[in-house]
Parts: sequence; C-alpha cells; structure tokens
Amino acid sequence: MTNQTLSINLATLRNGWSFGEMVDGCLRHDITAIAPWRDQVESVGLAEAARIVKSNGLRVTGLCRGGMFPAATPEGIAKANDDNLRAIDEAAAIGADCLVLVVGGLPGSSKDIVGARKMVADGIAAMLPHARAAGVPLAIEPLHPMYAADRACVNTIDQALDLCALLGAGVGVAIDVYHVWWDPNLAAAILRAGAMRAILAHHICDWLVPTRDMLLDRGMMGDGVIDLKAIRFMLEAAGYHGPQEVEIFSRDTWWKRPGDEVLATCRERLATVC
Amino acid sequence: MTNQTLSINLATLRNGWSFGEMVDGCLRHDITAIAPWRDQVESVGLAEAARIVKSNGLRVTGLCRGGMFPAATPEGIAKANDDNLRAIDEAAAIGADCLVLVVGGLPGSSKDIVGARKMVADGIAAMLPHARAAGVPLAIEPLHPMYAADRACVNTIDQALDLCALLGAGVGVAIDVYHVWWDPNLAAAILRAGAMRAILAHHICDWLVPTRDMLLDRGMMGDGVIDLKAIRFMLEAAGYHGPQEVEIFSRDTWWKRPGDEVLATCRERLATVC
Repeated sequence: MTNQTLSINLATLRNGWSFGEMVDGCLRHDITAIAPWRDQVESVGLAEAARIVKSNGLRVTGLCRGGMFPAATPEGIAKANDDNLRAIDEAAAIGADCLVLVVGGLPGSSKDIVGARKMVADGIAAMLPHARAAGVPLAIEPLHPMYAADRACVNTIDQALDLCALLGAGVGVAIDVYHVWWDPNLAAAILRAGAMRAILAHHICDWLVPTRDMLLDRGMMGDGVIDLKAIRFMLEAAGYHGPQEVEIFSRDTWWKRPGDEVLATCRERLATVC
Repeated sequence: MTNQTLSINLATLRNGWSFGEMVDGCLRHDITAIAPWRDQVESVGLAEAARIVKSNGLRVTGLCRGGMFPAATPEGIAKANDDNLRAIDEAAAIGADCLVLVVGGLPGSSKDIVGARKMVADGIAAMLPHARAAGVPLAIEPLHPMYAADRACVNTIDQALDLCALLGAGVGVAIDVYHVWWDPNLAAAILRAGAMRAILAHHICDWLVPTRDMLLDRGMMGDGVIDLKAIRFMLEAAGYHGPQEVEIFSRDTWWKRPGDEVLATCRERLATVC
C-alpha cells in the first residue's frame, strides 16, 4: 500500500504555520497533494494560493468547504447560496478535485430535520449549474450522526448517494472514515458509491476511545479503533484508487506538535496502518 | 396526548435518593411506572425491590440492563453470559416488561466491528432460551453511533431488527429518541418494527445543542432539538401505544436538582412537548 497517494488536509496543520509554510512542510516530506480550507486560502490570498499550488505542481484533492444550506430566513438561504458560488470559483481557481460540502444542520431553533434535509437538496441544486459550468465536482460529505443538529443533517453514505441520484451529474461523496466507520451498511454503501462513480474523496484519521471532545479530538491513524485497511479495501473493491487525505482536528495533541512531526507521522502511518 | 402513560427510568433520578425514595417520589406525582437499573435494585435487594413494586401496584417498563456481549476471551464471553442469565431472573422477579440490552462495543483492543456484531448475535442467542422460559422479552437498544466503539455496536433500529429477524421470537427493540432521532430512515424503520411486533419500549429525553458530554448531558424533553411529537406519531402509526419512559443522564443539570422538581418537570413536558 506504500505507493498510495498521501494528501494532507491542511486542517491537520493548524499549529501556527502559514499557508506557504504548510506547503513547504509537505514538500519536505515528499507530499505533493493538499486540501486547504477556505480561510487558509484567504489568509494568503486566492491568487497567491493558486500560484503556490501551480508552481509546486501540487494536486489539490479538495477545497473545504461549501454547504451550510439550511437557514431560518430567505435572506439566510440567499447568503449561503452566494457564498457557495464563491466557493466554487475558489475551488476552480486552485484546481481542486472537488468542493467538499458540509451541508449544515437545523436552522435557528428548528426541530424539523426532514425540512432541513429538503433545504440541503434545494441548496445543492441551486449551486449545481455553476459548479458544472466551472468543472468543479461537488462532494457531499456525510458527517457522523453526532453532528446532525449543528453541522450536517446528511449522516450516512446512502443518504448522500440518494441526494446524488436526485441531483444528477456533478455531485458525489467524500468518504471520511471518522464519520462512517460505525455504519452497519458500510460495505454495501461504498460499493453503491463506486457503482455510481460517485467517490470523490477519501479522508482518513482515527476514532479515539475515549473521545474527549466531539469536534476536536480526532486521532492519528492507528491510534484508535477504525480498521483503516478494511475500509480502504472496500473503496478499492468499489473502484476507487485515489488519494488518502489525512484530516485530523486535534486541539490538544496534533495541533500542538511541530508540523514536521505531524507530517512524518502521517507518512509512517499511511505505510503501516492504512 | 395527556392520557399517555409516563414511566420514569430511575437513571433520571440519580440525585442521592434511595430506591424507596424514588418510588415514593414517583407516586407523589401520580407516576406508577418505573424502569430501574440493576445496581439500583441491588442496592435495596431484589426481594425488597420486588415487594415495593408489587405492594404499590407499579408497572416496570424495563430493567436496565443486560448485554455487553463482546469479550476478548472465552472466559469473558462466559462471564457475560452468566451475568445475562442473572439479569433475566431479576427482570422476571420484578415483573419487568422487558430486559433492555446494551450490547457492548469493541472488545479489548479490537478494531473488528463486524466480529463484535457477530458476538452480539451469538450472545443474545445464548441467553434467549432462558429468557423465553422466564417470559422476559429481550429489548435490543440501538445506541447512537457515537457509542459504537465503547458501548454498543448496534447503532440503528434496522440493524437491531435484522437481529430480531435472525433470532426469532422473544427479541425486540427499545427505541430511545436520543439514539435514533437523526436516522434518515427513521420513519420506515419504526414502521418495520411495528410490523414485526417488535417495539418493546419507547424512551424519551432530548438532544441538547451544544452537547457538552457524550454520555451525561442529555436534555429534558423540550430543551433540545428532537421533534418528540413527530417520533411519537411514527410509533403510534406503527401500532405502539405503550408508555413513554423518561431516561435522562444529566450529571450537571437534572441529577443536581431535587427529585420532585425533576418529576414535576417530566410530567409537565410529557403533556406539552411529547
């Protein structure tokens, strides 16, 4: 498995480095694929970020993130749509393989998760023509059900694939092991995603026991309970042989360590546990 | 909806009251259905608990809990089985409607969630003859996916119903809104459970935003984002008209309040938001 492409989601490197320092760090470890967040691109400027990417021959495995569709007012929905159109342009400018969509949760004080899900479908439909024109695939990322209320009301691969089927060409899924590893239907869902040619990204990290923070305590591959090799096998059986993108939100551990240590560890773990 | 039966899972009253004080408290609020935990029964003694239940004409909507099947060694599996047989006897002694099963997560340092799920099926099969002989239905409680690693690797109603279909008579499900509210397939899964005559219990509480602790920060009905009326409607459409059992683990809020305030609040919320 050592020939697999390693990509670093730059959220893994929220340790104080600038965008340029993150790229230099990746290059020092022979890592030539990255996935930045929009705030990280903005901090250096879109044109400069695109220049850095191009001049170093980097692959951008995704831009994080668009989405956050549900809103309590028409103005809120329009604002989200505007922002999502900008996100498409940014993804196109840096040549990203896809724009990752974190779809959003319940708007305002709503308890209507069915309604929120309808808003997600409508929101993706609204941005899709621009995404198709720009050549930017949209990757719906199902998030772990513990985020259903406040981050994403799309919570399984199958649910995301139902949206893909509803919306048509230009929409796929980002499969992050952290969000889907528990799914009793995981193997079948990944096969379905492959058959639909819908797998746009594969994110990796690990689920720690105990998990001390619902958002910022993700583990390094190998430090938790996810059978990463098994899930990679499912993805390859489904026809996906693309990059493995490391995305670790870890306020108290990896975000406190030197970037070079983080990157060296990612590379070593990819070779041994993924 | 005010005629619905309210049951109090006694984990809601972990505020220092004894078993007898909890029962007295419930009776003060015209609550005649309870669901104790085994440690609470043990603290007063099984015979005395059974006497208190019987002499007060209480309904016991469930005993919590059996399960915890996966183990790293044959000895561990045998020990769990022995404990589960005792749990059946205790449930029979207090006349519980069902024995609730929290099935357990990954054993030891295992990453094999498929294997753990097989251990769950085998474990229920092993205790089932005794449960049938004792007339104690076994209620598999699917737990929220955030507990898949360390508490329960059965995480959706459908997954639990697949086990029911595999195992046959005497096994059903406990549907706790906290664990299942996010499920995109919820309505269909509840209908399936009803068609299988498998709904043995309905637990209620609420999902708070933010949730500050993954285990001990459940909300009082109405304080969170779960559409309790909608889920109750699904259950009644599926033919379930049994008790609503309040189960709230709330270390920093409800466990710190006087039991009478907790019980009065449960009753008021049942009438207004459930």
